[in-house]
Amino acid sequence: MTTVPGPIDPPPRLLMGPGPISAYPSVLRAMSAPLVGQYDPFMTAAMAETQELYRGVWATRNDATLLVDGTSRAGIEAALVSLVRPGDRVLVPVFGRFGHLLAEIAERALADVHTIEVEWGQVFPVSAIEAAIERVRPSLLALVQGDTSTTMNQPLDEIGAVCAKHGVLFYSDATASLGGNDFEADAWGLDAATAGLQKCLGGPSGSAPITLSERAVEVIRSRGRVEAGIREEGDPAASDFVRSNYFDLGMILDYWGPRRLNHHTEATSMLYAARECARLVLQEGRDQVIARHRLAGAAMLSGVRGLGLEVFGDVAHKMSNVVAVEIPDAVPGDAARAALLDDFGIEIGTSFGPLHGRVWRIGTMGYNAREDAVLTTLAGLEAVLRRFGAPVAAGGGVEAASDVYRGARE
Amino acid sequence: MTTVPGPIDPPPRLLMGPGPISAYPSVLRAMSAPLVGQYDPFMTAAMAETQELYRGVWATRNDATLLVDGTSRAGIEAALVSLVRPGDRVLVPVFGRFGHLLAEIAERALADVHTIEVEWGQVFPVSAIEAAIERVRPSLLALVQGDTSTTMNQPLDEIGAVCAKHGVLFYSDATASLGGNDFEADAWGLDAATAGLQKCLGGPSGSAPITLSERAVEVIRSRGRVEAGIREEGDPAASDFVRSNYFDLGMILDYWGPRRLNHHTEATSMLYAARECARLVLQEGRDQVIARHRLAGAAMLSGVRGLGLEVFGDVAHKMSNVVAVEIPDAVPGDAARAALLDDFGIEIGTSFGPLHGRVWRIGTMGYNAREDAVLTTLAGLEAVLRRFGAPVAAGGGVEAASDVYRGARE
Repeated sequence: MTTVPGPIDPPPRLLMGPGPISAYPSVLRAMSAPLVGQYDPFMTAAMAETQELYRGVWATRNDATLLVDGTSRAGIEAALVSLVRPGDRVLVPVFGRFGHLLAEIAERALADVHTIEVEWGQVFPVSAIEAAIERVRPSLLALVQGDTSTTMNQPLDEIGAVCAKHGVLFYSDATASLGGNDFEADAWGLDAATAGLQKCLGGPSGSAPITLSERAVEVIRSRGRVEAGIREEGDPAASDFVRSNYFDLGMILDYWGPRRLNHHTEATSMLYAARECARLVLQEGRDQVIARHRLAGAAMLSGVRGLGLEVFGDVAHKMSNVVAVEIPDAVPGDAARAALLDDFGIEIGTSFGPLHGRVWRIGTMGYNAREDAVLTTLAGLEAVLRRFGAPVAAGGGVEAASDVYRGARE
Repeated sequence: MTTVPGPIDPPPRLLMGPGPISAYPSVLRAMSAPLVGQYDPFMTAAMAETQELYRGVWATRNDATLLVDGTSRAGIEAALVSLVRPGDRVLVPVFGRFGHLLAEIAERALADVHTIEVEWGQVFPVSAIEAAIERVRPSLLALVQGDTSTTMNQPLDEIGAVCAKHGVLFYSDATASLGGNDFEADAWGLDAATAGLQKCLGGPSGSAPITLSERAVEVIRSRGRVEAGIREEGDPAASDFVRSNYFDLGMILDYWGPRRLNHHTEATSMLYAARECARLVLQEGRDQVIARHRLAGAAMLSGVRGLGLEVFGDVAHKMSNVVAVEIPDAVPGDAARAALLDDFGIEIGTSFGPLHGRVWRIGTMGYNAREDAVLTTLAGLEAVLRRFGAPVAAGGGVEAASDVYRGARE
């Protein structure tokens, strides 16, 4: 490199895609706080405080509530490789791309993976999941809550009881849904759940909150192995060890727990970010944050319909924080998205697999679950649609969304 | 949680341990820059720019130079699980705790791991490594460069030729050494090397720079498997796949490469941090940064000797950026460290394994490889040693270190 570039200087963007979205300003500020040592009393207190904050976010009393250092799929992989032994049967109901991802990660862990599928745009009735559990007899059910690829929100509230009845561990990937949709780890009987910061929690990708029930911790502990180099007399060294050091939740628990046994070096700045994301949820109030997402999602849904656009999928089961909009015939989807980004600084999302080229995905999450963000996006989208020759009702999007906000204030 | 705590507000700390150390202020500022979308032209350009910056840091022309999203051991695990198949023989020369870690991670990947050891405080002669290669016939040699547990810096400059002669892949963990000690990925014949930000690069833990030779990429590509959900006709799906999704460098390369195939969501703020760490190295000049570390290390070494302290290990092979100091008899090591932290805001490190309780480890890395940081630490340490009744030469540490800096200016 002949010329060294200057400091990073990103362009202003209103991120209204399926995530990552614009972080809360205070989360960005938190990451610029000075570092402390990994065993500084301030650091271990901040870790404990972060655990307690996430208990509030997950609605759990699980002691084993912590962060995995990596993106949301690091959390998924940590949960699956720690809970599933090679050869164990795992059931994955797939209703979008991220169901395939759970199956893929479990397959990499050499699990015996069984999937059931519904058409994209639908969710599973509990009865279908129970029937599959009876047939497959898995040791673990891995189920996405909100799959942004289809915008569907799989109801989880009755699944935990079904799993308990059949002796199945219940894991859910709540990456895209946590903080913007109801989630009750304890009341719904979750054994493990993971998330990321870059969706409704309003932070950057790079830290994965996780919570584990006592039953899940027992499974993990049964596979315990303290690594050579710091292992002492009497430390566990199971032959049935987790086939990863980095994702061995037993060791990660020992690092976060009272023993503070060295594993990785906690990613301090990401911890600060994760702490602030959870702090903001509890400061505003968890139910209020979810309600704010519900309102923004309803306004965006009305808004895109007010522009004359069709919405994909079973809207009754849509996540509150993302909507899939059919791209009008004759509008070039990627060119229109690029125009929205270039001329208005607004990002909306493209799609995966069967929906690629068919729908845009528009998010209203975290910091951007706000009236001005919703209205600005609709105004920009209207202008772009008009430029590409699509028939749009002038002001129809903004008006419809404003009506929803007005109604909520009355 | 009944009361929601306030924003994070860490105490001021001068981090002079073996890492993490105080980040460069501009790295902290970089992390507070606004987010952009993961396929925003600005983001993909920032990723490409970061790759080019790290080619400068690693001294390589490797196209496959990128970041793994996680702490430094995430980079280690990605390298080992992607390069080593279950049953492959791996040779790990162990000269401290982090050699054990490489062996541990390779064992978790079900490699057939062979180790050779030297006493803590020593390094291996090339002949010993070549003899072990001839005996074990490994497919990969995994060798720590700088092991902070002993402060030793293993010479690597002749190892690549030995590996090439015997057809062995050569991997080095440069987490603790990169940026503060010589490292020449291409000239030394490395096939893979990984690092972290939290040592000489002066950033927070949470992103792992990695570079891979063409030969390493060929091995990884031979195990290619695009994940279900985004796999298309003709995409590879090897049965010999990497037993991890998150750490499959083939998929990570496709995400960073021109295909931009979705894998994880890049940790944007950590990318900004990693970019700034490398940018600072190249702006100051890589050789100048290494020389600055060498000078600070020499000053600290003279300084602790000027206080009458003994230094552990083979000083001729010491890393420039950390020194292990024998704790004087009658001084309670942990209490003295705590006093230095509480009363002066200065952190120095404890030790692992056989050295625990015997030595402190004092670092001079990244931002803190500075004269004022060295002198302040020595002044604080002197005061604490005196308080605990150790015989110390008044001003002897500061004076000896100042002399080194003065000598360098003349």
